[in-house]
Amino acid sequence: MPAFIADAASADNVPVHIVAIRGEADRDIERFPHTWIKWGEVGKVFTALDKNGCNDLVIIGGVSRPDFKNVRIDLGALKALPFLLSLSKGGDDHILSRIVRFFEQKGYRVHGAGDVLPELLVPEGTLTRRSPSAGDEADMALAFEVVRTLGKLDIGQAAVVSNGYVLAVEAAEGTDAMLERCAAIKQEGRSHGTGTGVLVKAPKPGQEERVDMPTIGPETMLKAAEAGLSGVAVAAQHVLIADYNRTIQIANERKLFLYGAPWGETEA
Amino acid sequence: MPAFIADAASADNVPVHIVAIRGEADRDIERFPHTWIKWGEVGKVFTALDKNGCNDLVIIGGVSRPDFKNVRIDLGALKALPFLLSLSKGGDDHILSRIVRFFEQKGYRVHGAGDVLPELLVPEGTLTRRSPSAGDEADMALAFEVVRTLGKLDIGQAAVVSNGYVLAVEAAEGTDAMLERCAAIKQEGRSHGTGTGVLVKAPKPGQEERVDMPTIGPETMLKAAEAGLSGVAVAAQHVLIADYNRTIQIANERKLFLYGAPWGETEA
Repeated sequence: MPAFIADAASADNVPVHIVAIRGEADRDIERFPHTWIKWGEVGKVFTALDKNGCNDLVIIGGVSRPDFKNVRIDLGALKALPFLLSLSKGGDDHILSRIVRFFEQKGYRVHGAGDVLPELLVPEGTLTRRSPSAGDEADMALAFEVVRTLGKLDIGQAAVVSNGYVLAVEAAEGTDAMLERCAAIKQEGRSHGTGTGVLVKAPKPGQEERVDMPTIGPETMLKAAEAGLSGVAVAAQHVLIADYNRTIQIANERKLFLYGAPWGETEA
Repeated sequence: MPAFIADAASADNVPVHIVAIRGEADRDIERFPHTWIKWGEVGKVFTALDKNGCNDLVIIGGVSRPDFKNVRIDLGALKALPFLLSLSKGGDDHILSRIVRFFEQKGYRVHGAGDVLPELLVPEGTLTRRSPSAGDEADMALAFEVVRTLGKLDIGQAAVVSNGYVLAVEAAEGTDAMLERCAAIKQEGRSHGTGTGVLVKAPKPGQEERVDMPTIGPETMLKAAEAGLSGVAVAAQHVLIADYNRTIQIANERKLFLYGAPWGETEA
């Protein structure tokens, strides 16, 4: 995702500098001006931003809990210690909102990936050759209701419904792991038939979308196919798509649909 | 579970006959008077019940979706075809309620395992050497809230919360698979610290408890230990425990707590 954003920004002649966390970011960010940091090197982050004249930030979320074995506390971290300690409780979303505020309080402007690159947002409507059937739409409606309900409890952003039956609900494991679970359930013969079912993904209410917008990509589509689903439906304009062309290509090859569902501001 | 119930019934001098589905029930039920049937042999079920003078039934739920490759339709199934077809839609709970009504309409009395063997129900309070801490109680409260909320959508009966963070929510995969997932999340370093966290299990509102009461047992406790949890909390009097002694023994060995939380009738 960082590489996609950097590519798109460069195509618009916007200079970028990537501050990447060791063990989290992919090595391919090194194609761009970059600074590697370890968990805890808070001071180094600000040094890199100031040295490179960065005032506008896009924070790519979705990291695992910090790798506590590889933390390197620097002076900046010590200064920020009360803030860092306050991060250790609660779900993802409070942490991310507080991280955004932390940077804003220091004078930086924080943007969402969707703000700087609206072409990465999944638009409304069917984006593939296959469209959702009436049965798919019923499954979709239930799955969105599940996600909306769970979102209030600050849980995951995705669910899979097949033939009116909720197969899986995402929490800490991530969408890929959830889809692999659905493939296993299908193999054990515990689903309501193969070739049917919808993965739905949407933001949690109050989610800090600038940092942690739900994302789908080629992997999502491949795993949805392996899980025997009919397709994927996401909250239009509130979900990012990594590698749009490849994702649609896989969907069409595997005969899955990708649908952007209208998602009102009242949902947020 | 069927064997436990049959053992307990026999200890009370209540004669039993087990009608078991091939591929679903464990072979150890053969210690008791029994009849094996295949999926679809509805007529054979009633023949077995009548031949053995059975008017009171305990239906043990928790089977996977029928193994459609091994179905053998008999005359009884043909007669019941409208009913069987109506079962193919919707979540577990409607199916189980309708199965109970199906038998009741034919004059059988359907009992819950907890009705005939109240000693199998998890009582209120702490059942182990270890008790829940204040942090455990906070995790427990959130997990029960998650289960209550999901239960309204007819989803799973269990959730795992660690340090205020919802690690996992059960849907179609079952509690064991969910706990294995939590162990994996712990290994990836994505949980909020090891040795803490609570598995909570409770019935869904409106759940047909006579057929499908949530169950825990030695496996649950072992997997909870592997997932690095502090303990297990269940809705007292509404969750069955298979092999009470072994479950408590494992909990004490692994230093986990087992707690029966008061569960009001208003929850149902």
